[in-house]
Amino acid sequence: MSKMLSLSGTVTWLRENDNFLILTHRRPDGDALGSAGALAQGLREFGKTAYVHFNPEVTPRYACFIEDYIAPDDYVTENIIAVDTASVDLLPNNASMYKDSVLLCIDHHKSNMKYSEFLCLNADRASCGEIIFEILMMISGSISSLSAERLYVALSTDTGCFSFGNTTANTLYVASLLVEAGAPNKELNKRLFRTKTHERVSLEGMLFCGLEYSFDGKVAISSITLDMLEASGADEDDMDDIAAIPGSIEGVYVGITIRELLSAHDCKVSVRTRAPYDAQIICSHFGGGGHSQAAGFVSKKTISEIKSELMEVLAGQGDGSSVL
Amino acid sequence: MSKMLSLSGTVTWLRENDNFLILTHRRPDGDALGSAGALAQGLREFGKTAYVHFNPEVTPRYACFIEDYIAPDDYVTENIIAVDTASVDLLPNNASMYKDSVLLCIDHHKSNMKYSEFLCLNADRASCGEIIFEILMMISGSISSLSAERLYVALSTDTGCFSFGNTTANTLYVASLLVEAGAPNKELNKRLFRTKTHERVSLEGMLFCGLEYSFDGKVAISSITLDMLEASGADEDDMDDIAAIPGSIEGVYVGITIRELLSAHDCKVSVRTRAPYDAQIICSHFGGGGHSQAAGFVSKKTISEIKSELMEVLAGQGDGSSVL
Repeated sequence: MSKMLSLSGTVTWLRENDNFLILTHRRPDGDALGSAGALAQGLREFGKTAYVHFNPEVTPRYACFIEDYIAPDDYVTENIIAVDTASVDLLPNNASMYKDSVLLCIDHHKSNMKYSEFLCLNADRASCGEIIFEILMMISGSISSLSAERLYVALSTDTGCFSFGNTTANTLYVASLLVEAGAPNKELNKRLFRTKTHERVSLEGMLFCGLEYSFDGKVAISSITLDMLEASGADEDDMDDIAAIPGSIEGVYVGITIRELLSAHDCKVSVRTRAPYDAQIICSHFGGGGHSQAAGFVSKKTISEIKSELMEVLAGQGDGSSVL
Repeated sequence: MSKMLSLSGTVTWLRENDNFLILTHRRPDGDALGSAGALAQGLREFGKTAYVHFNPEVTPRYACFIEDYIAPDDYVTENIIAVDTASVDLLPNNASMYKDSVLLCIDHHKSNMKYSEFLCLNADRASCGEIIFEILMMISGSISSLSAERLYVALSTDTGCFSFGNTTANTLYVASLLVEAGAPNKELNKRLFRTKTHERVSLEGMLFCGLEYSFDGKVAISSITLDMLEASGADEDDMDDIAAIPGSIEGVYVGITIRELLSAHDCKVSVRTRAPYDAQIICSHFGGGGHSQAAGFVSKKTISEIKSELMEVLAGQGDGSSVL
């Protein structure tokens, strides 16, 4: 059980210590890497020694925001900080030796498992970057352009460029201060939000053309076959948020994405719903699970078999109940 | 030639007068309608009579933000205000009787033709809504949730939900105050930016599948035929920002969209470039114009003829110069 630290308590701890190592989580996103990079940068500007632990899963999209801070192999310290990491199970394998010795965790996940000795948690923040911003402002009263750039990456990627439902007045306010401090929002937005790969565009084209609507347009099903992946050349990096597409269509309450997996003859099915429809209930009929608005299951059947079974479940299951 | 008014001069003029009629421009967008609705709402809250002139081109997307303010047919006043409207030529036909009698124009377009008696212009603002925000704050010191909602529509639509290059620290700061004042950003973002119509999805599918790349992927051409519009059912509301698509593909420096127009046998060609390529130079070969990064022209030729000519211009034009 962690001891909760306020922002000023966190700042005191950072001021009183030195030689920090910052950890990020598996499949690190813009918030984790932007937060880690900004914290390392800000601590260095304040005269501290701070490094980010190498994360083997960093993608080219975010590598440049972290590469100047990677700890050398022989760096040893006890002042281990985890950012944006709700549980030690989320640490990458090469950080497993730190799982019982994280001193400070800075996080915005309500689900934080309180594994660190000290915890600075604010679940009202859309991004961990907003908390790092407050900490750096309290440490030195200003934000450098390098920290601002990294924090802008954190805020903007965790909120879909301020379009997701988690975006608050605080997110926008901090973003305005970051741009004021020199975050190159124009270039970052172009690269992070307004650029698609050829492969993604090609795959989306096929996917959009193959969308199937049913139940008066309340249900949309998108199928991604291995042939489509081959024809488009799309890889895992191109699949980001692809399961959100059918559910983003006007009038659709149940968006389903069926994807053939490379391994074996499995299909992965993602279901996204808007209230009052429940994705978890739909997926429970197939042995799957998840949340009420986003759930999934894996099936050994073919795409067309899965579609038929989904239609049956959506229309009502023998006992007279109907999902729609 | 207009007399330039500062923000406080504009506020004084609004305080000293009453019975306002607010004009918007042809093909009114979220900034024009959000600005007009917010100004009417704010002036009414301050005890003034204010209406918005009916604009026959308002689309369902934005109608709800303006419908409470539409002037009755017999409404007569001399206090005509135009918002977001750079030229009288941009007024809809049913407002042509006001073209010589606009008393106040509030605008953010550098290209404003200074046609109104008084002009409150700030070309550093990404949206006209930001100027309206400042005016309303100076008039009454606060913003109601109704005005905030309309202004959020203005700011967010003119900046692609804060992702376009025009987004400034001020835009984000004002947006944060609008959310604080009750603008329902979650619902608005979902509707304005995270929902596509069936028709748009269908059109994008055809468009993505038909993209043509040339010059090692530096050039992408998208064609929108009348047949595609008919097959998809897409209308003008579905075409929002569609010319940005080819230029948003990774590695593309010149994105071209050729669209068959409903009227006559014209095609409208939009060219978007990234530096060092110049859209205006490309379009000047076809008698068109615009800006260095976004320009266009209209042609009587067929799509395939236009493509051939564009390829010639891009490859070099007789005189040995090459655009690429």
